[in-house]
This record gives sequence, structure tokens and C-alpha cells, in this order.
Amino acid sequence: MYIDLNSDLGESFGRYRIGNDEAIVPLVTSVNAACGFHAGDPVVMMKTVALAESSGTAIGAHPGFDDLQGFGRRNMVLSHDELRSCILYQLGALDAFAKDAGTKLQHIKLHGAMYNMAAKDADMSEVICRAVKSFNSDLIILAQGSGETFRVARDLGMRAAAEVFADRAYNEDGTLVARSRPDSMITDPDVAIKRVIRMITEGKVEAVTGKDIDIKADSVCVHGDGEKALEFVKSLRSAFAQYKIDLAPIRSFI
Amino acid sequence: MYIDLNSDLGESFGRYRIGNDEAIVPLVTSVNAACGFHAGDPVVMMKTVALAESSGTAIGAHPGFDDLQGFGRRNMVLSHDELRSCILYQLGALDAFAKDAGTKLQHIKLHGAMYNMAAKDADMSEVICRAVKSFNSDLIILAQGSGETFRVARDLGMRAAAEVFADRAYNEDGTLVARSRPDSMITDPDVAIKRVIRMITEGKVEAVTGKDIDIKADSVCVHGDGEKALEFVKSLRSAFAQYKIDLAPIRSFI
Amino acid sequence: MYIDLNSDLGESFGRYRIGNDEAIVPLVTSVNAACGFHAGDPVVMMKTVALAESSGTAIGAHPGFDDLQGFGRRNMVLSHDELRSCILYQLGALDAFAKDAGTKLQHIKLHGAMYNMAAKDADMSEVICRAVKSFNSDLIILAQGSGETFRVARDLGMRAAAEVFADRAYNEDGTLVARSRPDSMITDPDVAIKRVIRMITEGKVEAVTGKDIDIKADSVCVHGDGEKALEFVKSLRSAFAQYKIDLAPIRSFI
Amino acid sequence: MYIDLNSDLGESFGRYRIGNDEAIVPLVTSVNAACGFHAGDPVVMMKTVALAESSGTAIGAHPGFDDLQGFGRRNMVLSHDELRSCILYQLGALDAFAKDAGTKLQHIKLHGAMYNMAAKDADMSEVICRAVKSFNSDLIILAQGSGETFRVARDLGMRAAAEVFADRAYNEDGTLVARSRPDSMITDPDVAIKRVIRMITEGKVEAVTGKDIDIKADSVCVHGDGEKALEFVKSLRSAFAQYKIDLAPIRSFI
Repeated sequence: MYIDLNSDLGESFGRYRIGNDEAIVPLVTSVNAACGFHAGDPVVMMKTVALAESSGTAIGAHPGFDDLQGFGRRNMVLSHDELRSCILYQLGALDAFAKDAGTKLQHIKLHGAMYNMAAKDADMSEVICRAVKSFNSDLIILAQGSGETFRVARDLGMRAAAEVFADRAYNEDGTLVARSRPDSMITDPDVAIKRVIRMITEGKVEAVTGKDIDIKADSVCVHGDGEKALEFVKSLRSAFAQYKIDLAPIRSFI
Repeated sequence: MYIDLNSDLGESFGRYRIGNDEAIVPLVTSVNAACGFHAGDPVVMMKTVALAESSGTAIGAHPGFDDLQGFGRRNMVLSHDELRSCILYQLGALDAFAKDAGTKLQHIKLHGAMYNMAAKDADMSEVICRAVKSFNSDLIILAQGSGETFRVARDLGMRAAAEVFADRAYNEDGTLVARSRPDSMITDPDVAIKRVIRMITEGKVEAVTGKDIDIKADSVCVHGDGEKALEFVKSLRSAFAQYKIDLAPIRSFI
Repeated sequence: MYIDLNSDLGESFGRYRIGNDEAIVPLVTSVNAACGFHAGDPVVMMKTVALAESSGTAIGAHPGFDDLQGFGRRNMVLSHDELRSCILYQLGALDAFAKDAGTKLQHIKLHGAMYNMAAKDADMSEVICRAVKSFNSDLIILAQGSGETFRVARDLGMRAAAEVFADRAYNEDGTLVARSRPDSMITDPDVAIKRVIRMITEGKVEAVTGKDIDIKADSVCVHGDGEKALEFVKSLRSAFAQYKIDLAPIRSFI
Repeated sequence: MYIDLNSDLGESFGRYRIGNDEAIVPLVTSVNAACGFHAGDPVVMMKTVALAESSGTAIGAHPGFDDLQGFGRRNMVLSHDELRSCILYQLGALDAFAKDAGTKLQHIKLHGAMYNMAAKDADMSEVICRAVKSFNSDLIILAQGSGETFRVARDLGMRAAAEVFADRAYNEDGTLVARSRPDSMITDPDVAIKRVIRMITEGKVEAVTGKDIDIKADSVCVHGDGEKALEFVKSLRSAFAQYKIDLAPIRSFI
């Protein structure tokens, strides 16, 4: 059994610092690097790629809407041309730093509002997946297994990996419970870890309604900000070791 | 004898239009496409690359400072990391559109203040050239033959092409007469064309002082804006035909 | 009988030019000046205000979403704090140029997606109107008479003026026919002018269904771009003269 | 004897946090609020002004170059129109939040590269001071007493206040020792406090050369970031109390 740990990193900008990238990069197997639109700047991207490369951690692009003030979390409605070109632009920009560091991109994972909108919108997912495929058909799409982006990628013959969240509650249809609801978060780390282990070993999770649902888990998304996040990742890694689940970047087992 | 014609294009942004790209692209052999920092946006870049590709015109990156209001014409002092990463970012972004269109970048030419500052600054030129070389050592550096960028590129073992200006007066050291001087521009198109022909066939041009100087001409920069610019390019092409100078993209003869 | 003519101007940015501001400003009575978020930059704003001031044309703020690439025409979902502060910011910025020119702002008119979203959204209109009122309770809200922004402004005790469009078809509820429909535009200038005269003199317009509806017309929005737009404004002014409708800025008769 | 304590605050942007504004605002007498160009966004500005207003701390504008990535610390060369309009724009934007909060701006202090460039450049200082005066002739210019900005403001009949730095070494001409030099910083808090007390009570400070020079101190600039900065401000306030130096915003004693 294999699992990947991914984290959204490289989110600093200019003098502004977010995240404890140096500490988290060696603990995960895949880095999602912000590409300068919702977060990250060229210097930050160059350093993030170099850090991941030197740690042997796989690197993916984490493109978002061009909205630094909103951190890419505000819905924006783009035309197909705007969407296609904004994906290509960000992919290419990050790829240049990968080339510069002598490495290659492994995957792409959408950010924030773009991730959520695309998960529900097959057209949007198709525009994005076709752009990715045209750029590099080897890139893995990392997305929720229950969403449109994952499904569309598979339909287009692309490699896709299913992402799960340790600290979020699920609806019966495999979507996340909205953050606005009080029961949306799994706050107890032990419960969160048990849920993740079960997702990987049994392919099941208990939905917020109490009913067991099927879930596909290729990669677990973990946060890179704060001491508690680091502790959680370490606990998760211990649990994986105990259950003989091997940590590996998604490219090695998808 | 060969000569390349290059033009700075893809400078529109959102609803803002600059340049007569559709008309000029088929008349030149190399397009310098803005990369979204001083001009151009992802949609414009995608269309510019597609237009050049369908016309058989070679494509190069035209990166500049991140200053849309100043159109990249205002001097900015960047650290080496900022400079290196801003070159890689823009190169990669444009390269993604080339990949998407099934083609490859031929060259890079700096824009505006970055072009002028680097031409006089060996350190800046070295940071830039090393970034380009790391990204793709086949890329040709298009720069003034008398400047530091050209010299540094050659010293680093890179391919470099020398650019000349049809409508600008030269100082004895091969630099351009500052635009602030009244005698900086060659306003008579016939004179301009004769000067260009002589640069190509004899490797000479008369400096503003009246003295003949050596000049290397691999590519002539032409403007893409306005009816007169189009007429000038057509006249230049006729003159080339008359003097049996073959028009070809720089990659074919450098 | 009085009518105001308003036009969205000051939409250039850096080296990018849009609109024939010099020609249109003397022909209208109110200028809606872009405030640097969707269009306009500080230099353009300074010049637009100076131009209007020297022509005796009243000046209003034309704030929009912070989206230069989309020209403020892409829907964005902002929090109340984001919306309130983005209105105050843009209002204050334009007001500084009015102060600098020794004049005062007359009105505010929302731009593009913000105008359309607010017209249908009472909450959004209330956040915006309260921000405007707190900044300067004398400012007139210029908005569609049938929309929420107009209604909310009146409910808050603010001065509001009703804007009509000469070249757009109306639904029976007073809203505009969506641009995506083929019958959305009034393309014949003579028809457009007759409709405007009737809106002003009778308070009626024929909806796209053929039914007459009530409409309030304090100000007619005219375009500032292109030779045809200029001709249309001149024809409209002639028709006003013929029908003894006095042209005046909205502050003089609201 | 009176002294003002000023601090650069409101430098957060979107999700990015800088500074401990809540803790420092009540301890200083004047806040320099970033205006959205080099730092700060409209939401941050609205909150910063509200925080200062509720603490009874005077508010000033802290405009900088339009360079978020460089935090306004990278030199940019603007035309006079660009400079004048960028000052008016930022001043007006912040003023709107002051109006909204029912208060008035006290002063303006330039930020970063703009502060340093203007201090050495009489032309630049004159463009800026004339813009400020045109906007609001009551605004106090807060600048280094030895620099051009202070001198020009006085020559234009404006109110100007002299700022000193507790933690920086001075050259004999009253300018700051460049940060690149190892002896540029006063690292011992006790030494720093003694120097400030002497600047206020005697109008003298020992330059880096060992020679005593004259210095004018109306306001001391203190940092708002980090626990040590807070401790330092508290120690400074204790020392002021001990030496019977009254803390007051500059408007009350200039």
C-alpha cells in the first residue's frame, strides 16, 4: 500500500512570509508550489523548487486565479480562453524553475476557488485538463476523487490521483462539508489519523451523516503552517509506518 | 547574405489594444512576444504565439520589468535573485504557449529599460544570460552588437545575434544616440533603408559624428504600430530583394 | 425639462489608450472617471479630472472591481469589508484629484460587473451606498432607475439619479435585455434618439416585448469611443434642442 | 519638551500579515498607514484607520512606489506627472478612510525608496510637497530634518516635522549610515535610548565618526514588528517620563 503526502507551499510573496516550508518539505512527498497569481512570486518559486529538489520531494504546479488580495479564494468567472491561457502561463512559469533546477514537474493541483469551482464544473475541468495535456501529457492531475476534474482527466486518458483531506468532514456524495457548517472540520488529530488510515486501507470513510461511503485516497493534503500542522504530519507518518503504508510521491505508484 | 527582421509584438493587454500584429507578423521573420510583465496577458500571449506559428514566423521571448503602468520603460533596480527569477518566469510562461502550439522558442530579447540597463551592465547581463542558458542553452540572445549583453552571451558560449535599428542614429562607440537629442532619429525612410543595406552588406554605418563605424547586423528591429511602419517594412523587404539579401529567421544562419 | 449626458471616460492606462476623451468631454455634462482598479491610472485620473474641470463638465467616480485584465467586467464575489473598502479607496483617490483641481465630485456610478451585480443585489447596494454616504452624503448615486442600487440609495435618504441607455433594449421589468440576445441593441441611431426623447418627455419606452413601460430618465449614458459615438452624441444634442430639453449636469436638477 | 512616536503600520496585505498593529498603536502617538501601493490593501487601511482612531492615535499617509513585490524598497524613476499623481492617489485613498471614521489625517511620511530618494532630490521633494499642499495645506510633512524633503516643505510654507531614528547611526551631515555598513545599526537598546534622549533634550547626537552633530527631533520612528520592538517602545516611553519629555502627536506642538 502506498500513499503520497502533499502540501500547498511557496505561498510567500515579497517581504510577506506564509508557511514553514523548510520544515514541512522534507516531511511530505509532493509539494504544490504557488505560481505567482494567487500567491508566490518568482523569487519564492525559484527557492521553493530548489528546496523541494534538494529534499527529493516531487514538485507540482498549484495555479490559481490572478487575485493576490483574495489569495485565490474568491470565485472569478473566466472565459475559456482566459482559463486555458492562465493555466498554461502558470504551468510554464513553474516549469522554468524546475528546468533551472534540473528536475521535472510531477503534477498539477488547482488552488482555492479554482479547485472548488472546477470540481463541480465539467466544462471548466475540460478546458483546464486539455491545457495541461497539451503542455505535458505526463503531468498527473491531483484532485478530489469524487469531483469533475478527476473524472474529466481520466476520460481524457490522463493520469489522475485522488486527494483526501484528513481534517475535513465529507458529505455522502464524497464532497466536502462546507466550511460554514460547524461540523465541517475534524478537530481531534487522533480521529483524523484513524480516518485517513481507514481511507487508505479500506477505501471507506464515515460521512457526516454517519453513513460509510467509498473514497479513493492516493494522496493526503496536509497544511504547512504552524507547529501543530508539523506535529500532525509527524503523527501521520508514524501511523503510516505502523500500518505498513509506504510513503511515496504519486508518480511512483499511479 | 542573410538578414532577420524582428518586431516587438503581443503588447496588448485585456481590452487594451496596441500594434497591428496580424499585418506585421507575416512580414517579419522573428516575433518578440511580450510576456505579461510590462505588456501582454496570457490570452494575448496564446494568440500571439498561435499567429506567429501559423505564419511560419519564429518566436522569441521579450521579457521586461514587472511594470505595466510604465510599459517596462522605467528603470528598476532588482537583486540578482529577482532578476534571474523574473527572466525564468517569463521565459517559462511564453514557452508553455509555444509547447501548446507545437513549436519551440527561437530567441530572447530584453525589453525597454531592462534591455538598455543590461546593455551597459555586465553583471546584469551575466545574471540574465546564465538564467537563459540554464533554461534552454539553444536560445539565441538577440541584443545590440556593441553592448554587454551580446558580449557576455558570447563569452558564456551562447548563440547571440546582433540587432540594428533602422530609424536610430548611432554614437561612435556603437551605442544609440539618446532619444532626448534632436538628432537621435533617422526620419527619412529612404535614408534609413540605405543605412540598413550598408550595415548588412558592408558592416558599416555613419555615426552621428559623421565618422564611419563598424556594426554587426544579424537582425533589423522594425515597429509594428501604424500604417507608416507597415509601409516601411515593405520597402525594406523590397530593398533586401534588390540587393539579394535573403530574409530568414536568425536561427537559420547564426 | 432637463437631461444629463454621462460618459465613462478616463479608461486609458499607462501607454494604453482607450476613448476619445478630449472630443467627448465638452459634449457631455457628466464624466464618470475610472479610478485605477478596472481602468485608469493615477496620471490618467489627474488628466481626466483636469479636462472635465476645464470644460465645465461635472465629475463623478466610476469605481469597479480590481481586475484590469477583465476591465472590471468579470463577476467577483467580495466580502462586505472588501466591497466597502474598495469603494472608499477609489472614491477617495478620485476625490484627491478633484481637490487638486479645485473642484468637487458630483456623483458616483458603478462600473461593469459591479454595476450589474449591485443592480440585482440589495445587500451589495446597501454596503456600497452606506460607504458613499459616509464618505460624502452629497454625492449623487447614478444608477438604473429600476435597479436595487437606485432604490437602496433613495431608502437611505441619498440623492439618486436614474440612468437610461439609448442603444439598449429593455425588458418589461425595466432591466436591460442581455447582450447575448440578438435583439439587445438598438442599432438605428434615429430609433435610438426617438426612444430617448420619449423616455424624457413621456417617461415611457417600448420594451422588447412591444409593451410600453414606465422609465425614469435623469441621465443618458453615451459612449466615448469611435467616430460614430461622437456623431450620435451630436445628433442627440440636436434632438434635445429641438424638443426644448435642457442639457445640464444632474446636480443642477436632482 | 514634547516628542512624537511614529510607526509604519497597516502593512498587511490580503492573507499576509506583517506587524503587531494592535499592540503598537496604543503606544505611539502617530501612525503612518501604508496606502495600498507598496503594502496595505483597502481592507487593511480601513482597519488601521479605525484602530488608530479608537486609540486616539494620530493618522498619517505613508505612500510608496507601486511595487508590492519589492515592498516599495526598490528605486523607481517616475516622471513628475507620475510622481505627483501617485502621491495624490494614495493620499486621497487614505483620506477616504479617515473621513469614513470621522477623523482627519495629520501628516504624510514617504516610504522606503521614495523616502530615501526624495531626501536627496530637491526636484522630487518639490513635486511631492506641492501635491500634498494642493491636497491639504494643513498636512504635516514628516521627514528627516537634514534632508531635502524637510527643507523644501519649509520653503513652500508647509508644516514639517523632523524624524529621528533610535536604532540607526548618523553620518556627520545628518544622513543615515548605509545599512550595508557593519556600524549602521545601534544594537544596544540602552545606548539607543540615551541617544534619543540626548537628541530631544540637547539637539545633539554623536555621529559615526565620533563627532557631535546637531539634530532636530520632533518624532522618533519605532518599529512595530516583533516582541523586542514592543519592549523597546515601552522602555523609550519610560525614559521619556523620567526626563519629563511629554509624548504628543506632532500636530499638537509643531
